[in-house]
Amino acid sequence: MAESTSRPGGRRPDQLRDVTITRRYLEAGEGSVLVEFGRTKVLCVASLTEGVPRWKKGSGSGWVTAEYAMLPRATNTRSDRESVKGKVGGRTQEISRLVGRSLRAAVDVAKLGENTVVLDCDVLQADGGTRTAAITGAYVALHDAVTWAREEGIVRKDPLRGSVAAVSVGIDRGQPVLDLEYVEDVRAQTDMNVVMTGDGRFVEVQGTAEGEPFAKAELDALLELAAGGCAELTRLQREALGL
Amino acid sequence: MAESTSRPGGRRPDQLRDVTITRRYLEAGEGSVLVEFGRTKVLCVASLTEGVPRWKKGSGSGWVTAEYAMLPRATNTRSDRESVKGKVGGRTQEISRLVGRSLRAAVDVAKLGENTVVLDCDVLQADGGTRTAAITGAYVALHDAVTWAREEGIVRKDPLRGSVAAVSVGIDRGQPVLDLEYVEDVRAQTDMNVVMTGDGRFVEVQGTAEGEPFAKAELDALLELAAGGCAELTRLQREALGL
Amino acid sequence: MAESTSRPGGRRPDQLRDVTITRRYLEAGEGSVLVEFGRTKVLCVASLTEGVPRWKKGSGSGWVTAEYAMLPRATNTRSDRESVKGKVGGRTQEISRLVGRSLRAAVDVAKLGENTVVLDCDVLQADGGTRTAAITGAYVALHDAVTWAREEGIVRKDPLRGSVAAVSVGIDRGQPVLDLEYVEDVRAQTDMNVVMTGDGRFVEVQGTAEGEPFAKAELDALLELAAGGCAELTRLQREALGL
Amino acid sequence: MAESTSRPGGRRPDQLRDVTITRRYLEAGEGSVLVEFGRTKVLCVASLTEGVPRWKKGSGSGWVTAEYAMLPRATNTRSDRESVKGKVGGRTQEISRLVGRSLRAAVDVAKLGENTVVLDCDVLQADGGTRTAAITGAYVALHDAVTWAREEGIVRKDPLRGSVAAVSVGIDRGQPVLDLEYVEDVRAQTDMNVVMTGDGRFVEVQGTAEGEPFAKAELDALLELAAGGCAELTRLQREALGL
Amino acid sequence: MAESTSRPGGRRPDQLRDVTITRRYLEAGEGSVLVEFGRTKVLCVASLTEGVPRWKKGSGSGWVTAEYAMLPRATNTRSDRESVKGKVGGRTQEISRLVGRSLRAAVDVAKLGENTVVLDCDVLQADGGTRTAAITGAYVALHDAVTWAREEGIVRKDPLRGSVAAVSVGIDRGQPVLDLEYVEDVRAQTDMNVVMTGDGRFVEVQGTAEGEPFAKAELDALLELAAGGCAELTRLQREALGL
Amino acid sequence: MAESTSRPGGRRPDQLRDVTITRRYLEAGEGSVLVEFGRTKVLCVASLTEGVPRWKKGSGSGWVTAEYAMLPRATNTRSDRESVKGKVGGRTQEISRLVGRSLRAAVDVAKLGENTVVLDCDVLQADGGTRTAAITGAYVALHDAVTWAREEGIVRKDPLRGSVAAVSVGIDRGQPVLDLEYVEDVRAQTDMNVVMTGDGRFVEVQGTAEGEPFAKAELDALLELAAGGCAELTRLQREALGL
Repeated sequence: MAESTSRPGGRRPDQLRDVTITRRYLEAGEGSVLVEFGRTKVLCVASLTEGVPRWKKGSGSGWVTAEYAMLPRATNTRSDRESVKGKVGGRTQEISRLVGRSLRAAVDVAKLGENTVVLDCDVLQADGGTRTAAITGAYVALHDAVTWAREEGIVRKDPLRGSVAAVSVGIDRGQPVLDLEYVEDVRAQTDMNVVMTGDGRFVEVQGTAEGEPFAKAELDALLELAAGGCAELTRLQREALGL
Repeated sequence: MAESTSRPGGRRPDQLRDVTITRRYLEAGEGSVLVEFGRTKVLCVASLTEGVPRWKKGSGSGWVTAEYAMLPRATNTRSDRESVKGKVGGRTQEISRLVGRSLRAAVDVAKLGENTVVLDCDVLQADGGTRTAAITGAYVALHDAVTWAREEGIVRKDPLRGSVAAVSVGIDRGQPVLDLEYVEDVRAQTDMNVVMTGDGRFVEVQGTAEGEPFAKAELDALLELAAGGCAELTRLQREALGL
Repeated sequence: MAESTSRPGGRRPDQLRDVTITRRYLEAGEGSVLVEFGRTKVLCVASLTEGVPRWKKGSGSGWVTAEYAMLPRATNTRSDRESVKGKVGGRTQEISRLVGRSLRAAVDVAKLGENTVVLDCDVLQADGGTRTAAITGAYVALHDAVTWAREEGIVRKDPLRGSVAAVSVGIDRGQPVLDLEYVEDVRAQTDMNVVMTGDGRFVEVQGTAEGEPFAKAELDALLELAAGGCAELTRLQREALGL
Repeated sequence: MAESTSRPGGRRPDQLRDVTITRRYLEAGEGSVLVEFGRTKVLCVASLTEGVPRWKKGSGSGWVTAEYAMLPRATNTRSDRESVKGKVGGRTQEISRLVGRSLRAAVDVAKLGENTVVLDCDVLQADGGTRTAAITGAYVALHDAVTWAREEGIVRKDPLRGSVAAVSVGIDRGQPVLDLEYVEDVRAQTDMNVVMTGDGRFVEVQGTAEGEPFAKAELDALLELAAGGCAELTRLQREALGL
Repeated sequence: MAESTSRPGGRRPDQLRDVTITRRYLEAGEGSVLVEFGRTKVLCVASLTEGVPRWKKGSGSGWVTAEYAMLPRATNTRSDRESVKGKVGGRTQEISRLVGRSLRAAVDVAKLGENTVVLDCDVLQADGGTRTAAITGAYVALHDAVTWAREEGIVRKDPLRGSVAAVSVGIDRGQPVLDLEYVEDVRAQTDMNVVMTGDGRFVEVQGTAEGEPFAKAELDALLELAAGGCAELTRLQREALGL
Repeated sequence: MAESTSRPGGRRPDQLRDVTITRRYLEAGEGSVLVEFGRTKVLCVASLTEGVPRWKKGSGSGWVTAEYAMLPRATNTRSDRESVKGKVGGRTQEISRLVGRSLRAAVDVAKLGENTVVLDCDVLQADGGTRTAAITGAYVALHDAVTWAREEGIVRKDPLRGSVAAVSVGIDRGQPVLDLEYVEDVRAQTDMNVVMTGDGRFVEVQGTAEGEPFAKAELDALLELAAGGCAELTRLQREALGL
């Protein structure tokens, strides 16, 4: 199967793109992070407000949710705005739900009190891996928001159970590769997004055969690549947070 | 980990619910199937029409898509209709996209000619596993629609590349189990939907840690259970189709 | 006028199609009925919940409402889903309102207490007369829901004032006929839906001249046919309910 | 049954309110009519444009359709605008469909050529009977639009097959009455809208038992009242048109 | 610059069209005014209700807002209804906001108490200047509504701080002109709407260069014309109100 | 009137905030500019595509339009996304229309050929003056897009007729001030946005009395401040473009 093929930028199959995590990117937002995976740039802002959605009122516990969106010209050709079309597309909803679920895995909502954190992940520039960059950056923004809330006395106990990070893996021209950029993503026959905790366990595994169905051995190879990538992203998150 | 616990209906951990596949359930529809996984009942109707969406016109190849929905009282408490709310929810869109992608894995759209198959999967009664039942039943409806189209001379070559079937697996009270019904699904700490081809390869793997993140060993145990379940469902599909 | 013409299936002008009323079709739903008028199949589910719409709060009386819808492939050619289009069409709303009004005629909402019954009528297969089948089946589902609520002590007094049933009549090729199926309905020059109580009074009369306007004598002939049809449907409802 | 009761304004049971039909109310519009049934005022504008909806293209025949709406303060308490709510309510759609169907009964669309007439019926002030006033006024606007189109040579043959007019009837405190105003309409136990041709045949009969179901004798009494009212309205239409 | 050119109807550059203000045009509405600027006709209805929007509750002060809309055939060619399109267009929203802001300039909302006035401005016929006619007429309707509320004891102190009126000005073929009708508006290279108080101060100045940008001297000439026009409109408002 | 009061950051009344114009902020987009007016940051992206809206087809001339939006946490408290709400608010539409009109003033669309430029102005951080920053930055993005299109041979002649820039002015505590930041904007009694060409003429003047109506002398003072500000912004645009 695996023809030996070079990757864009000369990356090794198991190598992440250059990752940059810039905290306090905006003045507003209890946490605001610009995360860059190569040319992919996502602005992740955590808004922590008192109160919870109606169905959680009186529960004593909080809520974490996320909204993902792309600016119209984040990509090579301009997309119509979902606000103008009057509805949020399936892909946007699917990713928003994924980001929300992933971040909730990092939080003990009971310890959050009746507070809500909304994580807005807006893609300024897209070059593949926007959802995994969003999760990775949103965790840092969440950490900042929670730290602020503890300093303010809004949240008493530490609600963070651990960190989460995410990366894409795929099989491109027969070769399992880590952190696909757009040109790789388009031609990959299998595409997988993996969300992991800082201690190396799985939160989400979403693999799709775009072309050929894949075998268990290929799945294992991809998961191993993803584990390495998430470990490195966890290290970069900690470094950015000064931990 | 695994406390030995009995399942509802006394099922073994690796046992499917009773599965029934009823073909030609309706008079209309090029293929129409009522699929039942225990108490879960999904009506899967394949509509094959000439013509393709605008972005495929002139390509010579066809398209396969799906729409999943629940009747308002498919569940224990009534849900508002999405038509009345004026928009399709995130969960519905996500499952519709999953069903469509999964069925496209079974089809060589180039051989379909410029024809479109829409697979409508309407849940009459929901007791867990509605999306996996939908995929499993929709394949049979698709097979009937394609057979009809070949007999009519609308489609010349066999566009089916193989079959697909799907099943849910999860970890309930520490034990990996196959084909979760609603009560199991609600309390499962990990939940995974697996779509496989008739020859045992993976089309989709979607695993989510609802509570605790999961380890690679648990993931492997779940995938093994899923492989067994999909093999059995493939057998039942062939039996229903008289193959 | 009246050329003597044979009807599909050899039916007499004053003859209903085969009518089947299947109670407890689903596990959920305080009443759930599959009603069949020939090839027309409608699933009617009654959901009884405590509480009333805001504008009835504190009134001490209840509410009965209905929602009618068609599955996309209930008919010969697939229709787009109203949920996907983002709005409920005029025909759907009109029929939902008709079904709701008709069923309220059978209920003394003051005796219902502050409870609401929603009647979901989903057409699985359409061959003419879907709205009249819906009303006829919904009454049986409503009866089951009310009986359940009285057994549970949720409703104290019997809120049912009598039964309702409905049938279509029309003038097809000059001849007044009862319970039109699709091919008759399409070519009928006059089309009328009549909802009647079990004791033979009118709840709704909706007649439309599709082609030629109609005279009083024709209207009278149609109403007489309808009265006979509703009486027979009332008998079948009672039989199904074991009364 | 019938207690002898006086009507508002001292009207006899079979008496219309004062009816005024003002042609050429606006400068734009191929026909524009302000119709008044007592305090009910409806502006009916006919717009005749070349071309037909997509599904009629190439058929050689035309189309007639209607849109009914109420200004927000046509009634005693202000209603929210349907444009602001983002959707057209069920009642509005139902009446728009009724008006369109009724006017089409007056037109041989084949003789209209591939032209479309839209009848906009906007209620400036509502005091019961808005839909029947709309139909009665819209016919006059349609007549003017068609006359203009024939003079312009856009339409060659006379497409009008006859006139239509409409009136409401009901049973108020046991007494059948003609052309109900709001206070009567609210308390009527039966409410019926009848659309008739100028030669006394029925186009639409829509009767609803708001309280008690009604017997055939009551229905007959109502239809007789309606026939008288429509005959008088037909006379007033002809007078307004100078026929 | 200014070529001497004649205006439609032989108007002088600084001359308003014939302006008519008809109070109590409808039976409902705490104030209802038909305002006519030449062929432009706008129905302005003030609805005063107790209570305020949620964000003002408990503030002790009231609210004034406006909704502007056009009937479909107010113009030469029919426009689709915004209710049917399912959304309010940008132009409609912009004018509604302008009318609301302008009227609030005339009101001390603190003295209004927790009451809301909605000003519905529906254009029956449009020939340019609909927004300025709307503001001018709405002020009179507001005055009537407030007077009524004071007589009823709903409002204690006079909340009106002064009057507002509005007029359009523009540069048509080099010449500054007052109160443009449609044919002038279409070809004007600069278009300005000016809202002024009865004592000659500015509430809103909205000038747009449709073609050539304009110089300060032109702006000054336009504002002077507008001041004259608003003074005359103020006189006509007072006359209509019998002040 | 004018109490001498200090401005935030010690600015003089006629002093702009620090303005930064960063070209080529993104890889995609024929022109992409990050414009900063103090803490206000707006990303302005010009997308130039072949083809024009339907109503301009065959005209030989092009089109320029704009869409303005705010990220949810651009402000101190999070706003709901307009895509999620399903409609674009009045303020957003109003500003989008203003930006589009202003930029069209800089372009001779006949020389653009049948090409469309969309200017997406997304506010990353808002501290007052977002619409004026958007116009000022969008002009630079437009210039880059047009230059690119001429280099590519897509556009033959220079379609730019001159530059446009915009600034806000207002009366804060009696003093006319230039380029208001949020805290000033909130308490200003008069607020005006002025769009000017590079040669000092007016494209748009939009003044609103938030509190007290304003006199002609105040209007003149504001326009003079605006003229100075726009001249300085024009200089900064030219500097950024290397002209």
